[in-house]
Amino acid sequence: MFVLHPTLRNDTIIVGYFPLSVLLLMNDANYPWFILVPQREDITEIHHLNREDRVQLMDESHRLSVAMAACFTPDKLNIAALGNVVPQLHIHHVARFSGDACWPKPIWGQVPPTPYSDDAYEALMQRFSGKLKNAEGFSFSG
Amino acid sequence: MFVLHPTLRNDTIIVGYFPLSVLLLMNDANYPWFILVPQREDITEIHHLNREDRVQLMDESHRLSVAMAACFTPDKLNIAALGNVVPQLHIHHVARFSGDACWPKPIWGQVPPTPYSDDAYEALMQRFSGKLKNAEGFSFSG
Repeated sequence: MFVLHPTLRNDTIIVGYFPLSVLLLMNDANYPWFILVPQREDITEIHHLNREDRVQLMDESHRLSVAMAACFTPDKLNIAALGNVVPQLHIHHVARFSGDACWPKPIWGQVPPTPYSDDAYEALMQRFSGKLKNAEGFSFSG
Repeated sequence: MFVLHPTLRNDTIIVGYFPLSVLLLMNDANYPWFILVPQREDITEIHHLNREDRVQLMDESHRLSVAMAACFTPDKLNIAALGNVVPQLHIHHVARFSGDACWPKPIWGQVPPTPYSDDAYEALMQRFSGKLKNAEGFSFSG
């Protein structure tokens, strides 16, 4: 049975679900930073997924990327499957801006996270949910 | 017309070609570090590729990942499309080992590159080419 890794559960807010992946928001207001976690047990690498799941993951990543680009108009998206610390397969999607907290460096391990205030979280999700509701197959949490 | 970005051309060695992507080896002996560059003009984001190309890229990434896993048996693969410095779309594939030069941190911007000696490059490619020749659609350079 798939269970979200406790570190991911602790560091993020569940936004909703694609058919394959749960969509998380990293609780770090430095950047719009979302994470897709395929709901498959004991998977640590993309190449461990079967091809149907890989295609589905690619489609879900695409829909998330299109929504992020439309909402945030970033200078760059950073998409990465790392997992050196948290082995459960998870794919970061980060909207980057020249002049953000650690541009142009990759974000991992650079700047301490800045948790969202309630107001900032509400504002972000109000802004983003309008784009995300157009993402095929996505349903919001709760 | 697709032209490889001069920074990528300068920092890497061309290994060969999948139908969509050129496969590069980063000239840094700290880690087995390969890069796929889809041969499409003026593309900076995965979501700018059409779906046929995205599926093809996913398949090529899979074949590269399987070959790297079989050859190097890494503790983790790190796969990432960043592009904050070099905007041309390119997807890093890095074999990571606990105890490598910057484990468990991501590799970018951490440790100066260590260029391969001729012998080390020959040894690496001899070892890897046996796995890579099984990758569907791949042909070696030159």
